[in-house]
Amino acid sequence: MIVVMKKNACKEEINRVSAQLQEAGFHCHLVVGTEKTIIGAVGDKSRLLNIPLEALPCVEKVIPILAPYKLASREFQPEDTLIQIGPVTLGGSELHVMAGPCAVESEEQILLTAQIVKEAGATILRGGAFKPRTSPYSFQGLGEEGLRYLALAREKTGLPVVTEAIDSASVDLVAYYADIIQIGARNMQNYALLKKVAKTGKPILLKRGLSATIEEWILAAEYIITAGNSQVILCERGIRTFETCTRNTLDLSAVPIIKHLSHLPIIVDPSHGTGKWRWVTSMAQAAVAAGADGLMIEVHPSPEDALSDGAQSLNPANFRQLMENLRNIARYTGKKLRPNDSRHLSCPEHTKLPPTEEGYRPKEGVM
Amino acid sequence: MIVVMKKNACKEEINRVSAQLQEAGFHCHLVVGTEKTIIGAVGDKSRLLNIPLEALPCVEKVIPILAPYKLASREFQPEDTLIQIGPVTLGGSELHVMAGPCAVESEEQILLTAQIVKEAGATILRGGAFKPRTSPYSFQGLGEEGLRYLALAREKTGLPVVTEAIDSASVDLVAYYADIIQIGARNMQNYALLKKVAKTGKPILLKRGLSATIEEWILAAEYIITAGNSQVILCERGIRTFETCTRNTLDLSAVPIIKHLSHLPIIVDPSHGTGKWRWVTSMAQAAVAAGADGLMIEVHPSPEDALSDGAQSLNPANFRQLMENLRNIARYTGKKLRPNDSRHLSCPEHTKLPPTEEGYRPKEGVM
Amino acid sequence: MIVVMKKNACKEEINRVSAQLQEAGFHCHLVVGTEKTIIGAVGDKSRLLNIPLEALPCVEKVIPILAPYKLASREFQPEDTLIQIGPVTLGGSELHVMAGPCAVESEEQILLTAQIVKEAGATILRGGAFKPRTSPYSFQGLGEEGLRYLALAREKTGLPVVTEAIDSASVDLVAYYADIIQIGARNMQNYALLKKVAKTGKPILLKRGLSATIEEWILAAEYIITAGNSQVILCERGIRTFETCTRNTLDLSAVPIIKHLSHLPIIVDPSHGTGKWRWVTSMAQAAVAAGADGLMIEVHPSPEDALSDGAQSLNPANFRQLMENLRNIARYTGKKLRPNDSRHLSCPEHTKLPPTEEGYRPKEGVM
Amino acid sequence: MIVVMKKNACKEEINRVSAQLQEAGFHCHLVVGTEKTIIGAVGDKSRLLNIPLEALPCVEKVIPILAPYKLASREFQPEDTLIQIGPVTLGGSELHVMAGPCAVESEEQILLTAQIVKEAGATILRGGAFKPRTSPYSFQGLGEEGLRYLALAREKTGLPVVTEAIDSASVDLVAYYADIIQIGARNMQNYALLKKVAKTGKPILLKRGLSATIEEWILAAEYIITAGNSQVILCERGIRTFETCTRNTLDLSAVPIIKHLSHLPIIVDPSHGTGKWRWVTSMAQAAVAAGADGLMIEVHPSPEDALSDGAQSLNPANFRQLMENLRNIARYTGKKLRPNDSRHLSCPEHTKLPPTEEGYRPKEGVM
Repeated sequence: MIVVMKKNACKEEINRVSAQLQEAGFHCHLVVGTEKTIIGAVGDKSRLLNIPLEALPCVEKVIPILAPYKLASREFQPEDTLIQIGPVTLGGSELHVMAGPCAVESEEQILLTAQIVKEAGATILRGGAFKPRTSPYSFQGLGEEGLRYLALAREKTGLPVVTEAIDSASVDLVAYYADIIQIGARNMQNYALLKKVAKTGKPILLKRGLSATIEEWILAAEYIITAGNSQVILCERGIRTFETCTRNTLDLSAVPIIKHLSHLPIIVDPSHGTGKWRWVTSMAQAAVAAGADGLMIEVHPSPEDALSDGAQSLNPANFRQLMENLRNIARYTGKKLRPNDSRHLSCPEHTKLPPTEEGYRPKEGVM
Repeated sequence: MIVVMKKNACKEEINRVSAQLQEAGFHCHLVVGTEKTIIGAVGDKSRLLNIPLEALPCVEKVIPILAPYKLASREFQPEDTLIQIGPVTLGGSELHVMAGPCAVESEEQILLTAQIVKEAGATILRGGAFKPRTSPYSFQGLGEEGLRYLALAREKTGLPVVTEAIDSASVDLVAYYADIIQIGARNMQNYALLKKVAKTGKPILLKRGLSATIEEWILAAEYIITAGNSQVILCERGIRTFETCTRNTLDLSAVPIIKHLSHLPIIVDPSHGTGKWRWVTSMAQAAVAAGADGLMIEVHPSPEDALSDGAQSLNPANFRQLMENLRNIARYTGKKLRPNDSRHLSCPEHTKLPPTEEGYRPKEGVM
Repeated sequence: MIVVMKKNACKEEINRVSAQLQEAGFHCHLVVGTEKTIIGAVGDKSRLLNIPLEALPCVEKVIPILAPYKLASREFQPEDTLIQIGPVTLGGSELHVMAGPCAVESEEQILLTAQIVKEAGATILRGGAFKPRTSPYSFQGLGEEGLRYLALAREKTGLPVVTEAIDSASVDLVAYYADIIQIGARNMQNYALLKKVAKTGKPILLKRGLSATIEEWILAAEYIITAGNSQVILCERGIRTFETCTRNTLDLSAVPIIKHLSHLPIIVDPSHGTGKWRWVTSMAQAAVAAGADGLMIEVHPSPEDALSDGAQSLNPANFRQLMENLRNIARYTGKKLRPNDSRHLSCPEHTKLPPTEEGYRPKEGVM
Repeated sequence: MIVVMKKNACKEEINRVSAQLQEAGFHCHLVVGTEKTIIGAVGDKSRLLNIPLEALPCVEKVIPILAPYKLASREFQPEDTLIQIGPVTLGGSELHVMAGPCAVESEEQILLTAQIVKEAGATILRGGAFKPRTSPYSFQGLGEEGLRYLALAREKTGLPVVTEAIDSASVDLVAYYADIIQIGARNMQNYALLKKVAKTGKPILLKRGLSATIEEWILAAEYIITAGNSQVILCERGIRTFETCTRNTLDLSAVPIIKHLSHLPIIVDPSHGTGKWRWVTSMAQAAVAAGADGLMIEVHPSPEDALSDGAQSLNPANFRQLMENLRNIARYTGKKLRPNDSRHLSCPEHTKLPPTEEGYRPKEGVM
C-alpha cells in the first residue's frame, strides 16, 4: 500500500500516519521526493485492512498495490480450473457452447430447442425459468414448471442444464433441477445470493455486472470461493456504455485479462452482449478467437414469437451456420469443438431426472 | 409504438407485421415515407406487451412511445407524494437531511453521532447495520446488534432511523427496527428484494443503481408500488463514468428530471456521489439548489478511524458548517430547513423503542 | 513514480529496472513486500519523462505520483487567477453570466438578444459565428458576417463578446472581433488550435471534452499556458454517459475539484450540459451553489425558430426568472451578481468596434 | 420524423405543429393514441432539416427515422468500397495488416521496423511523424524529418505508408509523403481538418473518437465524402468506459455494425484499443474473426526504449507469432492473408520516392 502525502504535509503528520500504519502491523518505508513524500506500507494484512487514511487532510491519496482478491487469482493458483458438468469439462481443451431460449415458455418449446441445439453441436442447454425483468409488467418466467421442463429436456437429450437463480428463496429449488446455477448481471453484487448459491456445491456461472470492473467481478467470484465453492465460471455479457447501436458493449478484452489475472474459466454471451441477433455470429466468432472457453447463445425455434428477448435470439438455421464457423476458428485457437450431435451424450448417469412428478420438496427447516 | 420497416421491406411483409399487431389488439396506422414505411400501433396494452418484432429481418427497429412505467409517473398522479416518517414529512416544503455514519460500529459511536447530527439540524439518522461490501474481506456490519443501537439512538434523540436491507432474509428484521428501509445501489434491480420490502409497509429509500438509467430506476420504484407500497423515496448517489477523480459522477440533473417524470420525492447522497469528504459540501449545496427534497450525508465523529467509507465522511465541524450553508440556500429554492436541535423531535410517540432486550423474533413460518 | 514489479520478478530484473531509472536521473528506493517489490523513483524530471517500463514483462504497472501538469496547478500558484474582460473580472467575488444564442442568425436576432440578456443581468454576450456540427448538412454559422454582428451588439450594449474558433485558419479573424475565444468540447485536444489561440493573447474559454477526464482537461489548459497565455477559463459542459434523458451528464463535481487542483476560474454551461431547456434553470442554480465563477446560458428570442440547438435555449421570460433565482443563491455562496441592466457597462473604452465596414484583413504573411 | 406530443397537448397545439411541418415541406400523418398523439412527418428534406420542435412546451420529443448520413450508407451504395493503396486493395478478399512504431524515432528505427513487419507479412507501414500528445511535455514527433524516413522505408521495402495529420497546416506536407492520411481519434470531429484532408485525394484512415457513437463516426466520414473524397477507411480503436484494466474498451461489435450500415472498409487497432501489448494478440485475432478488413498494430524493435506508447507495442517475436495465428483464422472468415515477405511488393511504381533531398516545398499561395 502506498500512501501519498499532500505537498505541504509536515513531519509530524507524516510520523503520525506512519505510526498508525505500524500499529496496524505494517512496516513503513518513507520515500521523500522533491515535491511529495510517500509511505510504502508492507504487511501481511494489507489485503484485509481498510484504514481510511484518505479521511486525513494531510493525505492526498492511498494506492493499493496488491489485488484485493486472492483465491481467485492466477498468482494463488497458476493452473487453470477445470469444471466438470456431467459429461462436459469446461476450461480445458474443448470449446463448449451453451445454447437455448432466453426463457422456457413451454415443454414443447424447450424440448424442440434442446434437440436443435444438440444436433448443431451445443453441449449444454440454457433456459430461464425465473426471469429478472426491468419492468414489472414483463413476462417473469414459468418458475418451477420451467425447471421441470428443463430437466425433461436433459433426460431426452443428455445435455446438462444451466439456469438462473434470482433470489435466495429459490436457490435450493433451482439447485435441485440445474447442473449449473447462473447468477445474472444484475445480481453480481448480491452478496447474500452469492453466499447462498455457493453452498449448493453446484458449478456457478457468474455474469459480469452491467457496470462492473473486472476487479469487482473477480471479487464477486472471491465471495463464492470463500464460501466454499471454487467451481465458478465467469461470463462476459457486455458492459454499459454510451453507444446505442447495441444493447451493451461486449468487452472481449475481458477474456485475455481474466486468463491473465485468474485461473477461472471464462465464457462469452454475445446475445446479451449485442442485443441483436444480427451481430451475434460475428461476436461469437470473435470471442472464440480471443480465447474464450465457451459461449452462451440464445436460440429460439421462432424468435419472432419469443416471450422474452426475441430480438437477440438466433433462429435454428443461423445457429447451425454459426456452429460450422466456430468449428473452424476454434481449431486455430487451441480449442476443439465436438462433432455434431455427440452420441456419447445420450442418457449418461447425470441425466437421471429428479422425480419430476413429485417435484421439489424443500427440506424442513432448510429455508 | 412505432415499427420502422427496413427500406426494402415488401408489401407482404408490412401487411404481415400489421396483422400480427392487430391480433395483439393494436390499431395500426401506416405512414409511407419516401424511403421507409413506419407502422404506428395504438392500443391499451402497449405498455404491457413485448412483441419481439425486431427478430424479423424486415423490421429495422421498434420505438416505444409510452413510458414503460405508470403508477410512478407524474402523468398518473400530478400531485407530489408526501411521505410521513414519524414527525417528519418528506417531499413537501421542508428540506430534510439524513445524516450519520456509513456503518454502525458501536453503541457509543452511534449515540454520539446521532447527538451531533441532531444538534446541527439533521432530522433523520442514517447508519448501516448490514453492509454490502465489494470485497468479502471488508467489515460487513454488526447485523442485529447494529439495528438495536440505531433504535436506542432514536429513543435518545427522537430521530427516525434509515438503514439498509441487503437481502430478503433480513427484511423483516430490518423493518422491525427501522423507520425507512434503504435499498442500496447494487440491489436496485434485485426484484425479489424489492417485492419483499414493499410488503413491510415501511417507506422505502431506493438508491439509483451504479449504471441505471433514470427510466430503469423509476421502473424499480414501479416494482415496489405494484407490490402495494407507494411510499418510495428516490436517492441519486452517482453513476459510473470514466472520471477517476470521484468515486462516482453525481448526476444532479436527475433531480429536475425525476420531478418532471414522477411524483415521488428525490433526495441526493453526495457522500457516495463523490467518495471524498472534500467535495461533499459543494455538492450538497448544489443538490439543494437543484431542487432536491433532502440529502443523505455520511458523518463520523472521527472519520480517520471509521471501519467503512471514512474517506467520504464529514467530521462534525464540517457537517455543522454545511448545515449553516444549506439553511441559507434552501430558503431560496422553496424549501425550509428546520432550526437546529428541534426540541419538538424529543421523545415523540414513534420513538417507542422495540423491546431491545428481547430483540426481534421472527414469527413462525414467516420466512 | 512507483514501479510495481511482477510477483515472480527476480533480483536481476529488479536491478536492471533500477539501473535504467538511475540512468534517467532518478533516485530509486526499493520497498520489498511479502508478495511484490516496488521501486519508488524520485527525481526532478519525473513529470517530463515517459519511460515505457510497462513494456517489460517483469513490470506489472507504473503509477505516477505527481500530477502531469504544473503551471495550471494550485500547488504552483495558490492564488486564484483573475481574468479581466473589458469591464468584467472573472474568477473573483462576482458571478458572471454569459448569455446569448447558440448561433448568430442575423443582425436583428443578436441585437435583440443582447438587449434582453443585458437587461436581465448578463455581463457577457455569447453567440457562435462558426459552428462545429455533427452533420455536414446542418447550419454551419454565418462566419465573419456573424462576427461583425456580435461586434455591433457589443457596441450597442457594452457587453464583451465570447465566440468560438473552430480551426487554426480562422483564429486571427475571431481574435479580431472577440473578447474571449472559445474552444469547443470537440477541439479540447486539438493541440495545434490550442497553441494558435494562445498566441492571440486573448482570454481563452476552454470547454471540457465530451469524454475528457479532469486531468486531461487541465493538461489541455497547460498547453495554452506553456504557449504563453495564462488567461484560461475552464467550462464544464457535461460528459458523455449511458444516460439518455439528457444530452450529456453535467459533472458539477468538476467545480470543487478544479478549484482544488487548479487556480483557473471555472464556469458551467447547463444548456449543453442537459440539452433541454426544461432542466437548465435547476442546473444553473446548482452550478452556482457548487461554487462556479460563472455560467454560460443559451438564450434565444424565439427558441422554436432557432437554426441551432433551439431545444436547449431559454426564452427571454425563463432567462429573466433564472437570473432572479441566481441573484439570491449567489449571495450565499460568496459571489455577487450585479444588479440588472448595469449602466456602467454602457459604451466603455473596450467596446470601440473594429471598423466593421472594412472588416478583418489578414496581415500579409501572417497565416 | 416522428413528433410525440405531450399528453395534455390540445388540438390547437397539434394543428400548429402540423402546420409548421407542412410549411417546411413535410406531409403529416396524425396517429391519435389513447394517451398521446404522434405526428408522422414524411418528406424529402427530412435528413437536412433541423426544426427545433423540442423547444415547444407541447412537444415531448422528436424521433428521427432516417439515418442522418447518406453517402456513407449501405442503403445508398450496396457494394463494398474497395480502396487501392499502391499494390494493396483494402476492403476486398484480402486481410491487410498495417504495422510499425507509434512514432518514427530515427531513420534506423523505422527502416529496421519496416523490414521486420514486411517479413512477417504486413503490407502497409505505419508510423507517426506528428504526435498529438495529452501532455505538452511529451515527445511530439520528428515532423517532416519523420515523414522523410517513412518515405525512405517505403522505397526500401515497397510498403505503402500511413501516417497522421494533426492539423490543417501540415496536411499538404503529410499528403506529399504519405499513401494514406490518418485522422486520429481526438480529431474525428475536427471538421476543418476533415475537409482539408478530403481535398488531398489520398485515402483517409478515420479513427473513431474516444466517445463517438457509431452514428457520429459515420457522419464524420460523410464530411469527407461530401468534400469529394470517398476513399475513407474506418478504424475502431476503442472507446472510453469505466474499465481501468485497459486504456480503452475495444468495441468489436463496431465491425459487423459498420458492415451493415455502411459500404466503407473497417479495420481495428488493438494496440490503442487495449493499451497493453499483453492483450494485443488476442484482440487482433478477435477482430479478424469479427470480420475486419484489416488491422493496425504497433510494433517496435525494442518496446522498452520507445519514445511513445512502448507499453502497447509488440516486439518482433510476438508480432511474427501473431501473424502466424492470423493466417489461420483469416482463412475461415472469408479473408486471405498474403504469404510472408511478398516479393511482388518490391519496388513497384508507387514507391518512387518524393525527392527527399529537396523535401516538400509548399506551393505558393496554397496555404
